[in-house]
Amino acid sequence: MGFRIDKDSLGEIKIREDAYYGPFTARAIEHYKVTKQTMHEKMIKAFVMIKQAAALANMELNRLDKDKGNAIVSACNEILNGKLLDQFLVDAINSGAGTAFNMNVNEVIANRALELLNRRKGEYDIIHPNDHVNMSQSSNDTFPTALHIAVLMNIDELLPILSELISVLRSKEQEFNDIIKIGKTHLMDALPVTLGSEFGAYAIAIEKATKTIKDCKTLLEHIALGGTAVGTGANSPKGYREKVIKHLSIISGLDLKAEDNMQFGLQSRFAIANTSSSLRNLALELIRIANDLRLLASGPKVGFREINIPAIHAGSSIMPGKVNPSLAECLNMVCFNVIGNDHAVALAVQAGQLELNVMLPVMAKCMLESIDMLKGILRSFIDNMLKGISANREMIEADVKKNPILITLLAPKIGYMKAAEIYKEALKRDSSIKDLVLEKNLLSKEETERLLDIRRLFEDG
Amino acid sequence: MGFRIDKDSLGEIKIREDAYYGPFTARAIEHYKVTKQTMHEKMIKAFVMIKQAAALANMELNRLDKDKGNAIVSACNEILNGKLLDQFLVDAINSGAGTAFNMNVNEVIANRALELLNRRKGEYDIIHPNDHVNMSQSSNDTFPTALHIAVLMNIDELLPILSELISVLRSKEQEFNDIIKIGKTHLMDALPVTLGSEFGAYAIAIEKATKTIKDCKTLLEHIALGGTAVGTGANSPKGYREKVIKHLSIISGLDLKAEDNMQFGLQSRFAIANTSSSLRNLALELIRIANDLRLLASGPKVGFREINIPAIHAGSSIMPGKVNPSLAECLNMVCFNVIGNDHAVALAVQAGQLELNVMLPVMAKCMLESIDMLKGILRSFIDNMLKGISANREMIEADVKKNPILITLLAPKIGYMKAAEIYKEALKRDSSIKDLVLEKNLLSKEETERLLDIRRLFEDG
Amino acid sequence: MGFRIDKDSLGEIKIREDAYYGPFTARAIEHYKVTKQTMHEKMIKAFVMIKQAAALANMELNRLDKDKGNAIVSACNEILNGKLLDQFLVDAINSGAGTAFNMNVNEVIANRALELLNRRKGEYDIIHPNDHVNMSQSSNDTFPTALHIAVLMNIDELLPILSELISVLRSKEQEFNDIIKIGKTHLMDALPVTLGSEFGAYAIAIEKATKTIKDCKTLLEHIALGGTAVGTGANSPKGYREKVIKHLSIISGLDLKAEDNMQFGLQSRFAIANTSSSLRNLALELIRIANDLRLLASGPKVGFREINIPAIHAGSSIMPGKVNPSLAECLNMVCFNVIGNDHAVALAVQAGQLELNVMLPVMAKCMLESIDMLKGILRSFIDNMLKGISANREMIEADVKKNPILITLLAPKIGYMKAAEIYKEALKRDSSIKDLVLEKNLLSKEETERLLDIRRLFEDG
Amino acid sequence: MGFRIDKDSLGEIKIREDAYYGPFTARAIEHYKVTKQTMHEKMIKAFVMIKQAAALANMELNRLDKDKGNAIVSACNEILNGKLLDQFLVDAINSGAGTAFNMNVNEVIANRALELLNRRKGEYDIIHPNDHVNMSQSSNDTFPTALHIAVLMNIDELLPILSELISVLRSKEQEFNDIIKIGKTHLMDALPVTLGSEFGAYAIAIEKATKTIKDCKTLLEHIALGGTAVGTGANSPKGYREKVIKHLSIISGLDLKAEDNMQFGLQSRFAIANTSSSLRNLALELIRIANDLRLLASGPKVGFREINIPAIHAGSSIMPGKVNPSLAECLNMVCFNVIGNDHAVALAVQAGQLELNVMLPVMAKCMLESIDMLKGILRSFIDNMLKGISANREMIEADVKKNPILITLLAPKIGYMKAAEIYKEALKRDSSIKDLVLEKNLLSKEETERLLDIRRLFEDG
Repeated sequence: MGFRIDKDSLGEIKIREDAYYGPFTARAIEHYKVTKQTMHEKMIKAFVMIKQAAALANMELNRLDKDKGNAIVSACNEILNGKLLDQFLVDAINSGAGTAFNMNVNEVIANRALELLNRRKGEYDIIHPNDHVNMSQSSNDTFPTALHIAVLMNIDELLPILSELISVLRSKEQEFNDIIKIGKTHLMDALPVTLGSEFGAYAIAIEKATKTIKDCKTLLEHIALGGTAVGTGANSPKGYREKVIKHLSIISGLDLKAEDNMQFGLQSRFAIANTSSSLRNLALELIRIANDLRLLASGPKVGFREINIPAIHAGSSIMPGKVNPSLAECLNMVCFNVIGNDHAVALAVQAGQLELNVMLPVMAKCMLESIDMLKGILRSFIDNMLKGISANREMIEADVKKNPILITLLAPKIGYMKAAEIYKEALKRDSSIKDLVLEKNLLSKEETERLLDIRRLFEDG
Repeated sequence: MGFRIDKDSLGEIKIREDAYYGPFTARAIEHYKVTKQTMHEKMIKAFVMIKQAAALANMELNRLDKDKGNAIVSACNEILNGKLLDQFLVDAINSGAGTAFNMNVNEVIANRALELLNRRKGEYDIIHPNDHVNMSQSSNDTFPTALHIAVLMNIDELLPILSELISVLRSKEQEFNDIIKIGKTHLMDALPVTLGSEFGAYAIAIEKATKTIKDCKTLLEHIALGGTAVGTGANSPKGYREKVIKHLSIISGLDLKAEDNMQFGLQSRFAIANTSSSLRNLALELIRIANDLRLLASGPKVGFREINIPAIHAGSSIMPGKVNPSLAECLNMVCFNVIGNDHAVALAVQAGQLELNVMLPVMAKCMLESIDMLKGILRSFIDNMLKGISANREMIEADVKKNPILITLLAPKIGYMKAAEIYKEALKRDSSIKDLVLEKNLLSKEETERLLDIRRLFEDG
Repeated sequence: MGFRIDKDSLGEIKIREDAYYGPFTARAIEHYKVTKQTMHEKMIKAFVMIKQAAALANMELNRLDKDKGNAIVSACNEILNGKLLDQFLVDAINSGAGTAFNMNVNEVIANRALELLNRRKGEYDIIHPNDHVNMSQSSNDTFPTALHIAVLMNIDELLPILSELISVLRSKEQEFNDIIKIGKTHLMDALPVTLGSEFGAYAIAIEKATKTIKDCKTLLEHIALGGTAVGTGANSPKGYREKVIKHLSIISGLDLKAEDNMQFGLQSRFAIANTSSSLRNLALELIRIANDLRLLASGPKVGFREINIPAIHAGSSIMPGKVNPSLAECLNMVCFNVIGNDHAVALAVQAGQLELNVMLPVMAKCMLESIDMLKGILRSFIDNMLKGISANREMIEADVKKNPILITLLAPKIGYMKAAEIYKEALKRDSSIKDLVLEKNLLSKEETERLLDIRRLFEDG
Repeated sequence: MGFRIDKDSLGEIKIREDAYYGPFTARAIEHYKVTKQTMHEKMIKAFVMIKQAAALANMELNRLDKDKGNAIVSACNEILNGKLLDQFLVDAINSGAGTAFNMNVNEVIANRALELLNRRKGEYDIIHPNDHVNMSQSSNDTFPTALHIAVLMNIDELLPILSELISVLRSKEQEFNDIIKIGKTHLMDALPVTLGSEFGAYAIAIEKATKTIKDCKTLLEHIALGGTAVGTGANSPKGYREKVIKHLSIISGLDLKAEDNMQFGLQSRFAIANTSSSLRNLALELIRIANDLRLLASGPKVGFREINIPAIHAGSSIMPGKVNPSLAECLNMVCFNVIGNDHAVALAVQAGQLELNVMLPVMAKCMLESIDMLKGILRSFIDNMLKGISANREMIEADVKKNPILITLLAPKIGYMKAAEIYKEALKRDSSIKDLVLEKNLLSKEETERLLDIRRLFEDG
């Protein structure tokens, strides 16, 4: 059951006998050798879901013959179950609006549906990629819809990992909650905090970032499907829009709704910019946390040396025994890439013109890559780094005890200027604050000891 | 009543006789000659509100003597009413955490309070900038708090302008609602839309962007005041935090709440990143809209020439009579700057370390500048450009009538491939679609006319 | 000849019987599931070249036994000839400094060299990945060196394509050189230019951008190899550095030199930032050119409609016959991604700390992807879009003839203010400038005709 | 000698009696309330230089009457000497292409020239802003030319500060050259370097960045003056271009040349993008260096505590005696802003369309602000921070002596795996490497001591 078409209106084109795509796709594969990546699997599946939902809606509205429609639906099911995924060979960055990729999908489904009807691939007079598979659709409404769906599906895989990150940070908060350490502002010795409280604050940061990402889902759930070419829904039958979105919600398991204003839905990718920046803002927090952990681990002899990180592999090919915070560094790198991708997405979003923003494929590539990378590194970061962090309790406690910055606790009593003097003298003479204060008769021994008792800082609040 | 202090622990320092700042500030003015801008007025006022609220809370908790406290409160009132604003001379970008600026505020208030007590400026043994004005505070909790307040106040000035932008876009939607035009995808002729619907979609875009900005306010309303140096609230009395935030809410008229986790509140500037990116995302939409208007206005002879823009001044110093879309271009430029500023803010946000993110002054500078610029340009863009846009109705209507892309409306009947043929022939022969379709006997005259009647596209939906 | 090692100091680890990598790599594959891309082939080859050069230098300096050394050299040759490329499975973004990838290379070469000595893979007591393959090296000097080499090799593939782009733009300049058209400033009608001159100016832009990229090669050619772990060259024999770089130059065919200051060579990636921004700056010009072509092609009925672009595939899945500037849009998208990648690289570059910038793998990923994408899209853009552009000569010439902006040519005679009046009247009455000027007796017919003869503008200059 | 004009073609407009600008400027001041900054003084002066050079060239070519021309030249001289600088009130971000600002300049010069001719301001029939001051010019060629000149002048003020930065870094290299310390890779203890060598490597980084900035001057020196509106030089007399550029070179003291292709000179701002990215790349190095210094200074008790930084003011308003690396943090903030500004510039550069890039004012604002900020902060950073850095010699030397990472120096003898074992044991038992190696009889005492003698690492390299 080989291929019938070997040329189209643009002339001859070679298609492999066993291919399911057709001449449009074959040419697009030639024309777009850009990233050498194919479209993200979630985009393929989201697109196929749309084609299936459209076929169902078109059948219900008597636009599409049942035989053809059911064949299309079955072909889509096969792909959603993992078949023919190697047939989507158009480059991840292809034509504006992703027309080339939409046609790749139309052709593969058409050809597989033809087979299911015991026809030969390429008998487009029976099932045509444009007339039947693409019925009531345009690249212009399907690609943004698929993009929203793919991003939603990928975010839904990221969120549980973020939850787990929060919960492991919380467990570290518990574990280290009684370890009082010298706090650091400007990287300089400051008033004490607990090591646990640092991890607790990281947990909050991830919670806030997670909530913001979740909040982006609402805008993404509003899709422009049914707008067809320019948002007016031209060439789609009355009632189509409600039906197709209903089917698509069921197929995807997502809570999809029609974008109120379809023209907005095609011309603006605000929901994508919004989601992209929420990922960037997560990345900013993750960079900060990764940097902090690398600081705290700096050592083992020179540096902050407050925590130990598990060795996942030899840290150096030349310095034996060295343990590096490799996964934290990897997290940094991923976050840099995520921020760069957000930038690319922003450029794409501002480039919409009149009825359409055509810069869709690069949005799909960058957004989905960012989420994939975050999923990948966070999984490993949690399991192989975060969980295994231990504290150098003795070192930390020794550091805090004699630290002259504790003079701050006496400043409300003796005044800022006097306290500053004592601090400098303590540093110079390497004396304890207590000794100096008593030597100078500034406060009674009792009051000095009460004020310098740092545990009271952590008792209730 | 001149100045008493002319040296401090770092040695001699000249202070002008009529200055209200003291030696700390004088030195900081010397050290930070960076932007040659002073701190934003909203930051000055937000800071002074904090000092006032702190004095009230400290008096209530019997930490601060009533005489001194009331003098501080009165000095703050004067500044909030516009006095002494020229005394805040530390550069907009100063020391990490803005300590230099906090001290500038402390000194000006202390010296003015001293005067109100009939003391000489500089008699810090009576009212000390650190011990009394800064009581129960640190730069580390006051600067982020002031930053949140200043941004909130500035956003509250931006929002009504965005509302007006939406409403003027809506009125243009009404005005142009019956003008059917050739839609444009990929900048190429596409199915018709109405000129009004384009403006309607712009309104939606700004609505969504506005909502996102509004949503950022919740995070900003959570402030870290009371956390003092490292988030533990060290050196502030019990109950201080609730009291100071209550006073600050009243003074500022904002709905402020305590950040649940104070350490998070000092170490992370997530709320700022989140607000900054919401401004960026607004900018992305504004760029797109400005670009569209510039496209639509292109002409007057060659180009899209669909709209006319009001002449606000001669467009060219050499080409007489030329009218340029100057305010739309200005809007583009502002948005580029806003996006750049967001980038600077993001870099600052990721640079937090352990207990504190010290990169606060640059956040204040960039965020507040962005909002100011948006307020300024949008005010003028609405009044002097948007409101005055008129449509070239005849030109637009002539353009749409014979446009061969209307073949799309027949494609569901005659098939995509046949339609494509007709389109090319129409272009080549410069014939109307209707003539060609009838010539080729593809459809009846009645059906052809019914399908080509573009008004039906805009009847219900 | 299966694998001997199945555990190392970190415990048991499964390695496939037919694998050439060892336990270190196997673990790293597990730990770094980030991008799901492997390291770029040019990085693999650059790394293998370094290993080969090091073996040669170590043998010459009698550090490395000839038998082992020759086996290592042979193994490297095999890989450089395309064998075993599937053995480099560590993720493109892996550990800081790329230690994991360096070890992947060390292990594959060690194991293949062992085979060549008729030993079993894993007999590391004979040839050890660290002691022999990595001899006199560190990840810290090899990874930046490999990065420079890979980027240099990739740029050398980009440059001829840029040359061709320039030459095709030049041929379009020739082809369209006699087509006088209305110039456009602010997208509004302005004084005439030739269509050819626009393409000529694009050629210049690409020439300047190309020169800047070429200039970056000098910094890249200075490599830190021989610096080992911290730039001091510890653990490498005297004379090693000169020898290894000499060998590496021969093997790579590049003109490599030692970085004067090795510590700089490890701690700073300035050469990478510099190259990355030169790619960004190229992208800025390409975006502008692609946007211009899309503007000029806008139509075919409404818009600038000055040029026709070749149809490479149907432009729309719903609007038959539509031709879109798909490859120009694709070029835009690639450039957005390139700019985003530059941003990621910049973040990585600023993140160096003390003796080392560890953020190397993400630099490799982003830089090499950007160059690859540019190579890919420009190849197709030149062949399938640029070469096929044709001009709508009649339309353009008709547009220019009666355009009232030609009044500018009379302004030096009649004054700016008078000229502005005439312009407005011409637009309003749709009259020609010549008629109006003569009607108003402002200039003689002869002078008017001479001044309005636009051909004179293009005669010599 | 008051103002004559109080309305123009757009109707009535109020101009202050003592103003030198005219109705065009007055309106532009109203329309562009964006940044509330005026145009940078260097832009004002560069523009005035252009007007002066143009008047001289126009007089030489007998286009401009000597009386009028000389009055214009004199007016320009006055402004270049510092007069009337308060008359340039159009906002820093104004109309596309900066037409509004060009007209501001034209009007001020015209009105002052009128006064010099004993005429009343506003007698534009005598000297007209467009016809005489703007003669042979357009905003389109003057603004980019002024931009290049202003940036060149500002860079020429930055370069000596960068030279001084290099030389102070070099003097620190000398000062600390005999202080051997634990090097740091991944922030973890690594092989030793000298503290001096770190500063030496910073010096190299700034040298390379400085050279790149200098290299940008060549492109900037090529100016588009004489291209007038669209690059064809329309309305400028033959020979004008050479003359005006010759005069401008003399007036500005810069080595200016005509851009070969004038259309390129108007449509592309490649030279600006190139310069902007060179500033960004400098900023990336400065961030890294500032971060390193902050790391090295971290302490005084907990952290790296290798260097002491001079106290320029109290570091904390709450923690007495605390010294923060405030100027390094300020440098970080400036660099973040510079990177953001570069981003804004890049967006502006890609937004050129056809014959012109109109996004000029925002380029001027961001570029000049970045250079100003760098000049300001580096001046203070050098004087008040860098010069005053001292080393904690004893601490550093104690740190290095027993650090187990020195095992690396034995690895070539005892093998990587064995060395790794010893390292871990040394850490665990807190023993010295030497003791362990001797205890285990791995090497002779003599060889061990020779290999562990770290001074040999710094003898000749």
